[in-house]
Amino acid sequence: MELTVYLAGQIHDDWREQVKEKAKEKNLPLTFVGPQTEHDLSDDIGEQILGERPGKFYKDDAASAVNNLRTQVLMQKSDVVIALFGEKYKQWNTAMDASAAITMNKPTIIIRPEELIHPLKELSNKANITVETVDQALEVLAYIYK
Amino acid sequence: MELTVYLAGQIHDDWREQVKEKAKEKNLPLTFVGPQTEHDLSDDIGEQILGERPGKFYKDDAASAVNNLRTQVLMQKSDVVIALFGEKYKQWNTAMDASAAITMNKPTIIIRPEELIHPLKELSNKANITVETVDQALEVLAYIYK
Amino acid sequence: MELTVYLAGQIHDDWREQVKEKAKEKNLPLTFVGPQTEHDLSDDIGEQILGERPGKFYKDDAASAVNNLRTQVLMQKSDVVIALFGEKYKQWNTAMDASAAITMNKPTIIIRPEELIHPLKELSNKANITVETVDQALEVLAYIYK
Amino acid sequence: MELTVYLAGQIHDDWREQVKEKAKEKNLPLTFVGPQTEHDLSDDIGEQILGERPGKFYKDDAASAVNNLRTQVLMQKSDVVIALFGEKYKQWNTAMDASAAITMNKPTIIIRPEELIHPLKELSNKANITVETVDQALEVLAYIYK
Amino acid sequence: MELTVYLAGQIHDDWREQVKEKAKEKNLPLTFVGPQTEHDLSDDIGEQILGERPGKFYKDDAASAVNNLRTQVLMQKSDVVIALFGEKYKQWNTAMDASAAITMNKPTIIIRPEELIHPLKELSNKANITVETVDQALEVLAYIYK
Amino acid sequence: MELTVYLAGQIHDDWREQVKEKAKEKNLPLTFVGPQTEHDLSDDIGEQILGERPGKFYKDDAASAVNNLRTQVLMQKSDVVIALFGEKYKQWNTAMDASAAITMNKPTIIIRPEELIHPLKELSNKANITVETVDQALEVLAYIYK
Amino acid sequence: MELTVYLAGQIHDDWREQVKEKAKEKNLPLTFVGPQTEHDLSDDIGEQILGERPGKFYKDDAASAVNNLRTQVLMQKSDVVIALFGEKYKQWNTAMDASAAITMNKPTIIIRPEELIHPLKELSNKANITVETVDQALEVLAYIYK
Amino acid sequence: MELTVYLAGQIHDDWREQVKEKAKEKNLPLTFVGPQTEHDLSDDIGEQILGERPGKFYKDDAASAVNNLRTQVLMQKSDVVIALFGEKYKQWNTAMDASAAITMNKPTIIIRPEELIHPLKELSNKANITVETVDQALEVLAYIYK
Repeated sequence: MELTVYLAGQIHDDWREQVKEKAKEKNLPLTFVGPQTEHDLSDDIGEQILGERPGKFYKDDAASAVNNLRTQVLMQKSDVVIALFGEKYKQWNTAMDASAAITMNKPTIIIRPEELIHPLKELSNKANITVETVDQALEVLAYIYK
Repeated sequence: MELTVYLAGQIHDDWREQVKEKAKEKNLPLTFVGPQTEHDLSDDIGEQILGERPGKFYKDDAASAVNNLRTQVLMQKSDVVIALFGEKYKQWNTAMDASAAITMNKPTIIIRPEELIHPLKELSNKANITVETVDQALEVLAYIYK
Repeated sequence: MELTVYLAGQIHDDWREQVKEKAKEKNLPLTFVGPQTEHDLSDDIGEQILGERPGKFYKDDAASAVNNLRTQVLMQKSDVVIALFGEKYKQWNTAMDASAAITMNKPTIIIRPEELIHPLKELSNKANITVETVDQALEVLAYIYK
Repeated sequence: MELTVYLAGQIHDDWREQVKEKAKEKNLPLTFVGPQTEHDLSDDIGEQILGERPGKFYKDDAASAVNNLRTQVLMQKSDVVIALFGEKYKQWNTAMDASAAITMNKPTIIIRPEELIHPLKELSNKANITVETVDQALEVLAYIYK
Repeated sequence: MELTVYLAGQIHDDWREQVKEKAKEKNLPLTFVGPQTEHDLSDDIGEQILGERPGKFYKDDAASAVNNLRTQVLMQKSDVVIALFGEKYKQWNTAMDASAAITMNKPTIIIRPEELIHPLKELSNKANITVETVDQALEVLAYIYK
Repeated sequence: MELTVYLAGQIHDDWREQVKEKAKEKNLPLTFVGPQTEHDLSDDIGEQILGERPGKFYKDDAASAVNNLRTQVLMQKSDVVIALFGEKYKQWNTAMDASAAITMNKPTIIIRPEELIHPLKELSNKANITVETVDQALEVLAYIYK
Repeated sequence: MELTVYLAGQIHDDWREQVKEKAKEKNLPLTFVGPQTEHDLSDDIGEQILGERPGKFYKDDAASAVNNLRTQVLMQKSDVVIALFGEKYKQWNTAMDASAAITMNKPTIIIRPEELIHPLKELSNKANITVETVDQALEVLAYIYK
Repeated sequence: MELTVYLAGQIHDDWREQVKEKAKEKNLPLTFVGPQTEHDLSDDIGEQILGERPGKFYKDDAASAVNNLRTQVLMQKSDVVIALFGEKYKQWNTAMDASAAITMNKPTIIIRPEELIHPLKELSNKANITVETVDQALEVLAYIYK
């Protein structure tokens, strides 16, 4: 049984590549999708498509419209959602995606470091499970096939 | 037509009281509900009910279970959701509540200061409208009755 | 049994007042809601709340955000939707509201003049019933109580 | 990941062919579906199947029944909806399809010329994104795969 | 706890009056709604509102549009549905209403005489319970309050 | 685009075979499913699986449980439903299946002879389209691919 | 804000009376509903209404049809569900009701003794919160109003 | 038509292997999924992934989080659910899975021995059909293809 997994979360390191490689090593029949990970492209896509906007607020709103369409398409196609929170950044998109996934009844795994236990406690409690490492999340996915 | 409004967001100042007073001044037939605003009670409610837990993680998980039940009950009863982001704190609960509300098709107003335009851009784009002050949010509510 | 009726459609004449008076004459226990009918207020509400926007497009987008929130709140509270198309104007909002109502399984009555039979044929076919006058729409509502 | 895109909107020029060609050039794995684009067939299909009807109203109603069944089947199969408004015609079907798509949580792109900003402002605000050209819509679709 | 009960089924005798009286005798806090029971009005309502139609088929279609709107409004307001099948008539409306109610997760009671066991067996199996008399249906309703 | 079509309706003649052959002639990529058409098997399947039941009512209830499971599985997999009513028999199953399909938002075609216009008028009005022959229903399906 | 609470679970002691009294002491504006608690009535209600059935299996099936209708009506009206598991009995109804409530997105509290931690672990994990005493459940409800 | 069948129920004997073999013998195009059947793995998976927990309650809660995610993924992919109750054990998971499946409108078959008729009567009544042996359940599945 092939499954599609949406990888929500920060786009500042290569954690998605790690997830994909580890899934390959374990021979899991998973397809991974997720947000745009080129940060500049993600910020500029609105103006790239629509042309220059009158100021930063409007540039941001245009970019987020395109990013939200992408996320909506891919998340609706997904069977499982993994949301990773890192130690830096506000990461409200990650919280937004995880909460949308849970509300849509998508099985959801949160990855977050120990330091974030307190501020993420309500979201963790609503998710199916919360782990601390990419390896642990992969073990959860692997268990579906055991 | 009476409406119930869920006030998601930070619990560190008295913005909910301001909302209620201003709604009264405008004679809007609104009932306001929201999360537990006594911070200590919100953090301790799990152990208060279930007894001491084996460490901070478990204390937090117990508290968040009670807080999430409360939010689920009250948000399901609400016709509109206002989510306020302040300049401090991680406020992932606010993002979680706003995203859940939007996914449940609850009309949603975001209040956030100008500095948070960029990190909140995707959530703002999904909400019905984003404003910068409590007064503006009240004007939106008042417009429903005009 | 009290019912709430959303009156979608043009805001350039007093058809909503006619509906309300006729419902009163017939003693029907109906509450009527609908879009903002002061045209200028409807166009300016975005800038009234958010302040001046950088050009007409942004003014329009801000106003429509507030108008859409209002419609979403009131339509979700409604048991029946009436959508009136007049002979002038593009009236895409009316088509948008009628289609949203039908998709949400709200029982829907369309009022349109004979000249609009052809361009409205698909929407008419999806609605519960299409009539040509306000009086006829009222007779449909009255029939619920007979 | 293969996606199906419903192309709602006017049937008086070849914009759908342009969309398909450009998608091919970009090697996007998209299948396009849409309404009947032979205008005469679309108007006559009711009588072709059911036989002559007693007048234009009934001819139109029969045709729209068949057209609506087609649209319902194909839109339910679609992952994304593009709705194009041109400068002529009433195009209430386009507004109806776009609004139904948005209400069904289908990610939706509107294409409309600058002149239509004002009359389409509420629908634009509800859609994921509004652009002015077919090329821009294709860039949005291409972004899903970047 | 007040409940609303939709009484689907034949309109050729006074079974609805019996239901209402017996509910009164038992002091059950129930409101009863149902289809138009004046047979002529039910058949003529389309032409009464829309004017003469070109033949019997079109007269019937107009009447059924009004009847269906009424049923949709009232059934959506109901907490329980009772559907009574008598020994005569085709009663496809009764089967249609019962099946719609079951599909909408409305708790549903079927009343039918012994002779109809075989032709109604699939519908009976899908309903919550099937009884043979109005008295038995009332006992089921009374049990909710015991 | 391959579609699955559920063929609800009487099982006393070979109309389903006609549908399948005509679809083949037209090269339509359709898969057809439907209820059990061996009448005896359909009536006996409950006792065949569960063993003898204490009387006809219980035999019928057991059979209908198996038939309903079959219909539920296959209708949930279907993209379009065709429901054929013949001149004989009560055919409440056909009305039940058509009404369930419409309530589940499955695009639905009714086939019925002219004599049944009046008793089926409400169901016809709720379906997407009503035709009188198998050939006409096939033309509707063919139109999806034109 | 008045809330309705469904009290699922064993009917062999007076725990529901305790819940109601404690809610009264705390002045909580709650209405409590639940299954039939007279055990004999609950077992016999099918035959009481339908007459004698051919054996115990059929008696049980008739009773459960009436009990299930009651539960469906009352649970759909409820805002919160409490499910209590005692130390004796199989209590599959309690598990069934709790699981149905959770799947319907009803906020759900489980009460169970320590000995049942292991066999109830998956259901506990899906519920909002699990407590060990009626008093604790009441504290959760009281917290909604704090 | 290929179908996926979720096999809920006890994991203490090899009934799932029997189901699979018999389906093979009958050449039914079925894929079977289900819970983790290695009992120790199922109990230990939480600590295996998350590390040691502070006591049995927390070990159980961690394991059930992983088991519930697995079940949610696989059940959402399934077209039919079979739930088997044996004579031993509490089997609340089986009741939970069957009830969740029924509430999600998954066609559901219960297998239970005669001794469990009484305690399972409400759940049996809500399921599509209840049988006593694996062979009977297979005959129900085979009937879908006849």
